[in-house]
Amino acid sequence: MPIEGTHTIVMNNFIFHSPTEFIFGRNTENEAGSTLKRYGAGKVMLVYGGGSAEKSGLIRKITDSLTASGLEYVALKGVKPNPEADLVYEGIGLAVREGVTFMLAVGGGSVIDTAKAIAVGAVYSGDFWDFYIGKATPVASLPIGVVLTIPAAGSEGSCKTVITKKDDLGIHKISIGSELIRPRFAIMNPELTMTLPWMQTAYGVADMLCHIFERYFSNTEAQLVNAYSEAIMRDIMDQALTLKVNPDDYNARADIMWAGSLAHNGLCGVGKVEDWASHRLEHEVSAFYNVAHGAGLACIFPAWLLYVAKRNPDMAWKFAINVMSVNPQGLDTDHIIAHGISTLKQFYNDLGLTTSLRELIGEEPDIDAMVESLRHNIGDTLGNYMPLSMDDCKEIYRLAL
Amino acid sequence: MPIEGTHTIVMNNFIFHSPTEFIFGRNTENEAGSTLKRYGAGKVMLVYGGGSAEKSGLIRKITDSLTASGLEYVALKGVKPNPEADLVYEGIGLAVREGVTFMLAVGGGSVIDTAKAIAVGAVYSGDFWDFYIGKATPVASLPIGVVLTIPAAGSEGSCKTVITKKDDLGIHKISIGSELIRPRFAIMNPELTMTLPWMQTAYGVADMLCHIFERYFSNTEAQLVNAYSEAIMRDIMDQALTLKVNPDDYNARADIMWAGSLAHNGLCGVGKVEDWASHRLEHEVSAFYNVAHGAGLACIFPAWLLYVAKRNPDMAWKFAINVMSVNPQGLDTDHIIAHGISTLKQFYNDLGLTTSLRELIGEEPDIDAMVESLRHNIGDTLGNYMPLSMDDCKEIYRLAL
Repeated sequence: MPIEGTHTIVMNNFIFHSPTEFIFGRNTENEAGSTLKRYGAGKVMLVYGGGSAEKSGLIRKITDSLTASGLEYVALKGVKPNPEADLVYEGIGLAVREGVTFMLAVGGGSVIDTAKAIAVGAVYSGDFWDFYIGKATPVASLPIGVVLTIPAAGSEGSCKTVITKKDDLGIHKISIGSELIRPRFAIMNPELTMTLPWMQTAYGVADMLCHIFERYFSNTEAQLVNAYSEAIMRDIMDQALTLKVNPDDYNARADIMWAGSLAHNGLCGVGKVEDWASHRLEHEVSAFYNVAHGAGLACIFPAWLLYVAKRNPDMAWKFAINVMSVNPQGLDTDHIIAHGISTLKQFYNDLGLTTSLRELIGEEPDIDAMVESLRHNIGDTLGNYMPLSMDDCKEIYRLAL
Repeated sequence: MPIEGTHTIVMNNFIFHSPTEFIFGRNTENEAGSTLKRYGAGKVMLVYGGGSAEKSGLIRKITDSLTASGLEYVALKGVKPNPEADLVYEGIGLAVREGVTFMLAVGGGSVIDTAKAIAVGAVYSGDFWDFYIGKATPVASLPIGVVLTIPAAGSEGSCKTVITKKDDLGIHKISIGSELIRPRFAIMNPELTMTLPWMQTAYGVADMLCHIFERYFSNTEAQLVNAYSEAIMRDIMDQALTLKVNPDDYNARADIMWAGSLAHNGLCGVGKVEDWASHRLEHEVSAFYNVAHGAGLACIFPAWLLYVAKRNPDMAWKFAINVMSVNPQGLDTDHIIAHGISTLKQFYNDLGLTTSLRELIGEEPDIDAMVESLRHNIGDTLGNYMPLSMDDCKEIYRLAL
């Protein structure tokens, strides 16, 4: 590697624990009932979004399978993207009234994150939001299972949940993590994702890629982890382009779905100091302008990379060559990195995603307000690959315009 | 890909469940006691090999940590490579007499496999060997924890155990699998492996590589799984050569140790029909001639690949280019494959491993006897990438001479 790494340190100690059982393949949604039974479920709360899961017959298949296993259930529908606290409160009330003992999320990240918030809220005497603002730490949770329909968030195998709450002080989109809310099992049938609107697939691809980016861009030495992370990133991009042409390609759907879980179950971050600045920057965008998280990331991440690569080029150089397949011959470091970033932007554009924040939200974003909210939510510095001041964050938002 | 795949099929349904908690990094052996306590251990049976773990001070560190956590323990030492049933019987007796509730294996695959056999045997009223000959299936097990000292077998994160029993009918080296015996946790400090005799590291590398080979050589379409498997294989080879020069390189030790777990926790086989012919062929060699499993594999696997590639070249071609970095330009398929195999053999030789069975065991192996034993243990056909008859097996042993 021709660049002098100023921050490179050896691998950190780590714990990798990914106990979620992934049940993967065709028709696996019919195993929801028997799987819940195996995990000792009593009364189940089915959480889902809206009409599409009903119209497609998926909800019927799942309730049939619950009934066949002798399981009672209640349903909570209406989860929306960037899920809000209101529905969580409603779900907690329902869970307590109905004596629910197991959560089953049927959907993507928003549905799963809502189910997780209900799971910890239903067994807590205070306000579930206490967990999100650091006033309390979960000590118990209802167990959670998932039938995944949108590969993107990786929430089916992660211990994280992100919920948005609006109050007089502003819009708070906050992420918390606890081993208690890691799903016990995730049922994943790639065929269920074939009927997604194309943009949902594209947003999901941008989201899962960024889950790896947040871990890949690190000052920790990690040859093995970087090597398999690069392999996963390249495959996601390759199969996403396959799906753009042929949305019914089973193997490509399966790869994207499995990659989405690996991107966020911790495998790609072992031993590394992770970054997460791009996600935090994007959370403000989607909280303010209610855009899809993946759509926001396609604008924010290339801007972040452009900005940080000036002061910390190591991984940007590696990324350009090993992930974006830039041929380094005859190019200096700056050009290699610039070419890597432009190739990534082109990839997003090929999927139908814009990399311009202005274009995405259809107006001039209020950068000052987003940075103020960011400061309120997380403090004065952000990220680890290159720790960012609030002025740096402003610059990145500007580069993303 | 220029070769017509005659067998290629789409990804199979699969379950991936790797609940083992990996506790990885410097000084983590000191967490043995607190980790056992966290997992609810009562009386612990410490299982290990021989003098080196005592002399190095490792056993003392671990017993100190058990004592500090208020845990009682008994010790069973004396596990040898290719572990035998006799010590398992002894351990079962000890476990029952002492009321052991948790097994702690301190060592490599032989020690872990012995602990697993004791764990299922101690809670079974019959002969533990019933499980290995298919007369019974485990329905309960003592829980198992591991402090890993030899990265090789992957047993620290797998549900498998291999035990050898000698009786009047011959030598039976048999592998079984059960989720019940998958370790709850594996403590992995790469520094503990720095003092291994070099050949132990080399055997381990050959073993973990072959765990991926057995899954990689498959007729199932699996672009993503192949891509990250290739990345892991390349890294193992690269870091093994680093260690040959500098055995104290922490990052290389860490990569090899982590790769050994990923090679065998199921990640590299998801959705694929796996092969396992080379392992079975080698088990006869080490059962007959008591050689190290990894040493046997370095002879058997290249011979297996040479033989099967003639009838099923697809993955052999891919392996040569993507793993052994053969430049395909100007070479036909046969030459690409041949070059891939010779590069692999050269790699083994560079580690100090022979690829000649005759040289390994120091005499002419009794191929007929090994094939007869194989037939007795597994039946008339072997493997899935290319199903082998017993005559095919004979040919492969001959190619390995």
